[in-house]
Amino acid sequence: MHITDYSWTEFQNLSMPEKVISLSRNDGTPFHTLFAQQFNRANLDRLCRLATEIRTIAKTRYGMTFLRSLLAHKRAMLYFTQPSSRTFLSFLSACQITGLNVGEVRDTATSSEYKGESREDSIRTFSSYFDLIIMRSQEKGLAEHMAWTLSNSERPIPIINAGSGKDQHPTQALLDIYTLKRSFERRGGLRDKTVMFVGDLARGRTVRSLSQLLINYENIRQVFVAPAPLQIGQDVLNTLTSHGVQWEVTSDMHARLPDVDAVYMTRMQDEWDSTKGESAKIDTSRFKIGVEEMRLCKPDAIIMHPLPRRDEISTEVDHDPRAMYWRQMRNGMWIRAALIASTFDCAGRIDEFHRENL
Amino acid sequence: MHITDYSWTEFQNLSMPEKVISLSRNDGTPFHTLFAQQFNRANLDRLCRLATEIRTIAKTRYGMTFLRSLLAHKRAMLYFTQPSSRTFLSFLSACQITGLNVGEVRDTATSSEYKGESREDSIRTFSSYFDLIIMRSQEKGLAEHMAWTLSNSERPIPIINAGSGKDQHPTQALLDIYTLKRSFERRGGLRDKTVMFVGDLARGRTVRSLSQLLINYENIRQVFVAPAPLQIGQDVLNTLTSHGVQWEVTSDMHARLPDVDAVYMTRMQDEWDSTKGESAKIDTSRFKIGVEEMRLCKPDAIIMHPLPRRDEISTEVDHDPRAMYWRQMRNGMWIRAALIASTFDCAGRIDEFHRENL
Amino acid sequence: MHITDYSWTEFQNLSMPEKVISLSRNDGTPFHTLFAQQFNRANLDRLCRLATEIRTIAKTRYGMTFLRSLLAHKRAMLYFTQPSSRTFLSFLSACQITGLNVGEVRDTATSSEYKGESREDSIRTFSSYFDLIIMRSQEKGLAEHMAWTLSNSERPIPIINAGSGKDQHPTQALLDIYTLKRSFERRGGLRDKTVMFVGDLARGRTVRSLSQLLINYENIRQVFVAPAPLQIGQDVLNTLTSHGVQWEVTSDMHARLPDVDAVYMTRMQDEWDSTKGESAKIDTSRFKIGVEEMRLCKPDAIIMHPLPRRDEISTEVDHDPRAMYWRQMRNGMWIRAALIASTFDCAGRIDEFHRENL
Repeated sequence: MHITDYSWTEFQNLSMPEKVISLSRNDGTPFHTLFAQQFNRANLDRLCRLATEIRTIAKTRYGMTFLRSLLAHKRAMLYFTQPSSRTFLSFLSACQITGLNVGEVRDTATSSEYKGESREDSIRTFSSYFDLIIMRSQEKGLAEHMAWTLSNSERPIPIINAGSGKDQHPTQALLDIYTLKRSFERRGGLRDKTVMFVGDLARGRTVRSLSQLLINYENIRQVFVAPAPLQIGQDVLNTLTSHGVQWEVTSDMHARLPDVDAVYMTRMQDEWDSTKGESAKIDTSRFKIGVEEMRLCKPDAIIMHPLPRRDEISTEVDHDPRAMYWRQMRNGMWIRAALIASTFDCAGRIDEFHRENL
Repeated sequence: MHITDYSWTEFQNLSMPEKVISLSRNDGTPFHTLFAQQFNRANLDRLCRLATEIRTIAKTRYGMTFLRSLLAHKRAMLYFTQPSSRTFLSFLSACQITGLNVGEVRDTATSSEYKGESREDSIRTFSSYFDLIIMRSQEKGLAEHMAWTLSNSERPIPIINAGSGKDQHPTQALLDIYTLKRSFERRGGLRDKTVMFVGDLARGRTVRSLSQLLINYENIRQVFVAPAPLQIGQDVLNTLTSHGVQWEVTSDMHARLPDVDAVYMTRMQDEWDSTKGESAKIDTSRFKIGVEEMRLCKPDAIIMHPLPRRDEISTEVDHDPRAMYWRQMRNGMWIRAALIASTFDCAGRIDEFHRENL
Repeated sequence: MHITDYSWTEFQNLSMPEKVISLSRNDGTPFHTLFAQQFNRANLDRLCRLATEIRTIAKTRYGMTFLRSLLAHKRAMLYFTQPSSRTFLSFLSACQITGLNVGEVRDTATSSEYKGESREDSIRTFSSYFDLIIMRSQEKGLAEHMAWTLSNSERPIPIINAGSGKDQHPTQALLDIYTLKRSFERRGGLRDKTVMFVGDLARGRTVRSLSQLLINYENIRQVFVAPAPLQIGQDVLNTLTSHGVQWEVTSDMHARLPDVDAVYMTRMQDEWDSTKGESAKIDTSRFKIGVEEMRLCKPDAIIMHPLPRRDEISTEVDHDPRAMYWRQMRNGMWIRAALIASTFDCAGRIDEFHRENL
């Protein structure tokens, strides 16, 4: 069943697997990209391969010229009413790499300037001029509603969710998977690795999404390290158990550092504190990575962080070759370029160019 | 007489027909586009044909590549100090379609950042870097003054007025004409049709401009439907009468719906209320289009709206094939692309490409 | 010694000549462009020649297509947290001329949105997506620190300083030199000319930088005209003396006007007043250029102004062919395009195209 077969109310009440199917094209790839759950092993492998092809092709002028010709006839709207320079610039660059022209709507005041116009009408009007909407908004479910609205209109153009409140941020999970895969390329891939999550695991959507996507890979062991009040939710652990994934919960980071292949650091999410200053009372001193901690790590371990960081990772670590967080940012650009190319069915042409030229 | 033959004071005191002549090039097309009055039947027909050619050419990658090569060597400044995402994105897209690179000035604070610099100096400085200025401003007459200033400078670059306060918004009238022409393409064109205007006719510049431009077409009947305090101005009716145009003023929309070919809905312009809440007291309940009203309309009538809408048109009407307002938005992009192409003398090359390839 | 051979503390303590060397590439051209002092006679001549070549090439569609192909595979970040439409649009246009795609960070609120992230981390993250950073910031020394940070990272991308507070604005001095050279092209070049600076010479960084760069040219006489409290600093005069440059300090502009080749007007820099209204008490009435003053000037003298102006130059002067300030703005775009092209080693290809086609 396709999204156009449901009323808006019916669509909202679908289970996640049903939603995933309703958003897919015939070949199983997403038309609208709204949820991390839309990525299965096949999609992930395909997108990561595409991202690597794009990254390789982009190394030469000739290759960049090819890439920029792919979507030079299309335009994307970056509808970013929730500010985020990081994600914005990453998507903007991904658009530029694939040749897409962009228009921006960033100011909520401007975009809802005419009192009395519904948000849906604004977006639908703006979408008249574009072929893709990349949307970041504080409003829970807005991307979903616009996807339904546009799919049921005369101009069904795709939507990519670039983050919606606490809710979903599917391309962040994508870039994390891509970074892990890329880092372990010469070590047999992701399988059989141990991934350690450190920090505020209770409130970060990033960790939850990544933990779930890792289920797609064979024999990944997941270690959750946090002060007790910030530990990972029991629901995540239950999901892992039900899929036969090995996991471990601990507050002793240092004891586990020598064994893990990837350390995924996160910052305190104190913007979600229910009372101000609540998080500041938690002792997080043993959940930081500095030069000392790097000595404990394997020589081929990698350190990741979705950034921005505070003091979870010392700037002295930045020059360590195992520090992967800057490259992780850049991976975000490549995987987003791959997602955009895939959304417009360009994967085949990229494969072909890569095969013939590299 | 050309704009450069007048001092600024002389130019301001010209009659509208004299101004129109002074802004024209030798071939009769506008150099600066400032007023709806600059469009005569010949201009309108030519621009609408050009818009349709561009729209057709843009359907293929090959065609888009051609279009984007037209002005890839030029740059436009979008000077939008009066916020309007709608018009901004439409012009931006029109620029991108024709290959123009753009720069934006949107923030009045930024653009007049240096205290003591005149607005004219700012714009002239910024214009040093560009080949076209698309200007939307709250300041009455600013576009006119800049057109005069630039025409009398060493770099006489064209200006397109994208809306100046209550005053003029010539490209809005253009897109309305284009939508009407396009909708009636297979029904013998605009001639002999009845166009009904509904809503706040007293204060919308859109209706006034469109009513006037329709005089250019044979045997158009105009029907004005509004609550008494919001009826169309007597000056508009006098103009119609003096051109022998049939018109009708009524407050009974439902009685006239079965006869009309186009219904042009408008929203309450309460931002012009002299006392707050004044408009809210007017009973507008009989001036709305819903599913019931659509049943009364001809099967081939069209419903237009310049958007944003409030509740003048029910969202249930959106799926009716006669609802033309979303397409009307998109027409704005095509007709603006045509205007830009025409401003840079590209019409001939577009005609030629269209003739040879389509 | 190269910038990567120093720790940040060491780098900060270098003398200016040592810094200049550490920022240079093997061919002596700047990698990062941070200070006006990086431009010696050879650099200046080369950049001005390149700017003229670019300007000439840009006159044709074919030439513009060539120019825009130069850096179409690269992306620049315009990091402008100190607002400046003028410099921003000039750099934007320079990027567009050379084909660079751009991303913008302009809002300090947005760019430091996540509390607790250091400015350096933000910029480094954003820089992941780009190949060049053009930076304008209120923070003294930020461009320098980012240049050091990036040069010591895995992705050493160049930085161009587009103005840092009261400090440095190297491309402004470049465009002034280029305007002088271009204006005197047919009069034997810059050598043997008299340049007069008028206005607030005590506080404008523009005059200080230009005065210093002019030392690179043979036999330039510099005349400083200002009310006593706004006269040029003694340190500037000492530098001129030590280089054997002839200079003169006076408060009588009218007496000197008939002898000078270039008049460089500046506005009152009252934003640096230590007490509000301080500058307004100074009588500046004899330091203004109007129609009367133009009668005193040589027939081939030129009038320059970095803009914005207030009333130092009457608008009546704008139509005088000796008024060079609008063209000066446009020269800023060309010299910045030359600097960008040079930063990416495109000078050779531009020379070649120019030689073969023009």
